[in-house]
Amino acid sequence: MPAMYDASVTTITRALTNLIHVLEKAAAHAEAKKIEPAVLVNARLYPDMFPLAKQVQIASDVAKIGTARLAQAEPPKYEDNEATFPELVERLRKTIAYLKTLKAEQFDDGTRMVTFPTQGESKTWPGSRYLFQRVLPNVFFHCATGYNVLRHNGVEIGKADFLGPLE
Amino acid sequence: MPAMYDASVTTITRALTNLIHVLEKAAAHAEAKKIEPAVLVNARLYPDMFPLAKQVQIASDVAKIGTARLAQAEPPKYEDNEATFPELVERLRKTIAYLKTLKAEQFDDGTRMVTFPTQGESKTWPGSRYLFQRVLPNVFFHCATGYNVLRHNGVEIGKADFLGPLE
Repeated sequence: MPAMYDASVTTITRALTNLIHVLEKAAAHAEAKKIEPAVLVNARLYPDMFPLAKQVQIASDVAKIGTARLAQAEPPKYEDNEATFPELVERLRKTIAYLKTLKAEQFDDGTRMVTFPTQGESKTWPGSRYLFQRVLPNVFFHCATGYNVLRHNGVEIGKADFLGPLE
Repeated sequence: MPAMYDASVTTITRALTNLIHVLEKAAAHAEAKKIEPAVLVNARLYPDMFPLAKQVQIASDVAKIGTARLAQAEPPKYEDNEATFPELVERLRKTIAYLKTLKAEQFDDGTRMVTFPTQGESKTWPGSRYLFQRVLPNVFFHCATGYNVLRHNGVEIGKADFLGPLE
């Protein structure tokens, strides 16, 4: 059923596409203001929070692992070695390219059970619950936190950049 | 069709419930550390960003207006005068109580068109697109930004607080 495909693959592809746009604005901001890009890539909102690079990597991980579970597919593994804006953008492009390989027919109506590890234990939920209560909140959490790290550091972005264009 | 109901009402109710939990942790943190609660309620990540209180109010607005549009209902109007943690929590509780008044039968399969104003113009989209590309990202954006304002100010919260308990 295409509904679960759209709710997951289409929604998350858009979220990651918007995050690429935000990262590109940040890279341009760093260049214009002569800020060392690594300062932004390694920025965080609190000392024991993950820096921007890790926020992007986790958004990518949740996106590919979450959709793969729903599609009963095997997600690719990435190295988590991105250290620059172009590398982070490339990580997201690779993730989007993987999402594009998933076919609507691999998704069901959301009733198929999905088993996932979390906080040291394993849970088995209907796919729709897994998507709406874990995958989407988790993807948006890391996209928004990455956005907030950059916003806090003076990059000129607004919610419209996060939500994306309205065709 | 219950799918759109669950994807909107159930998902957003959970997001707002988790935000209440985060606000209650922040209020307890302020009390324990003898921090004036208004400092946190008015905190922001950058001078031209909305403070925490406004993040919560907008999360509430998007939640009630977005779900009401999908259900072809009339959402309540609130005053936007919350200035304390208990008032912000009450705002979210009122919003959740409103969401509970919406019935699954008021929702369709996501194909019904929805017209909404945005950035000075009006758009008409299928309900499923409106939900997945505007309402959910927007709700999670403000919930995550509220969370990040508090995290940045030293409140001891983690992603598990944002994502909520795993029953």
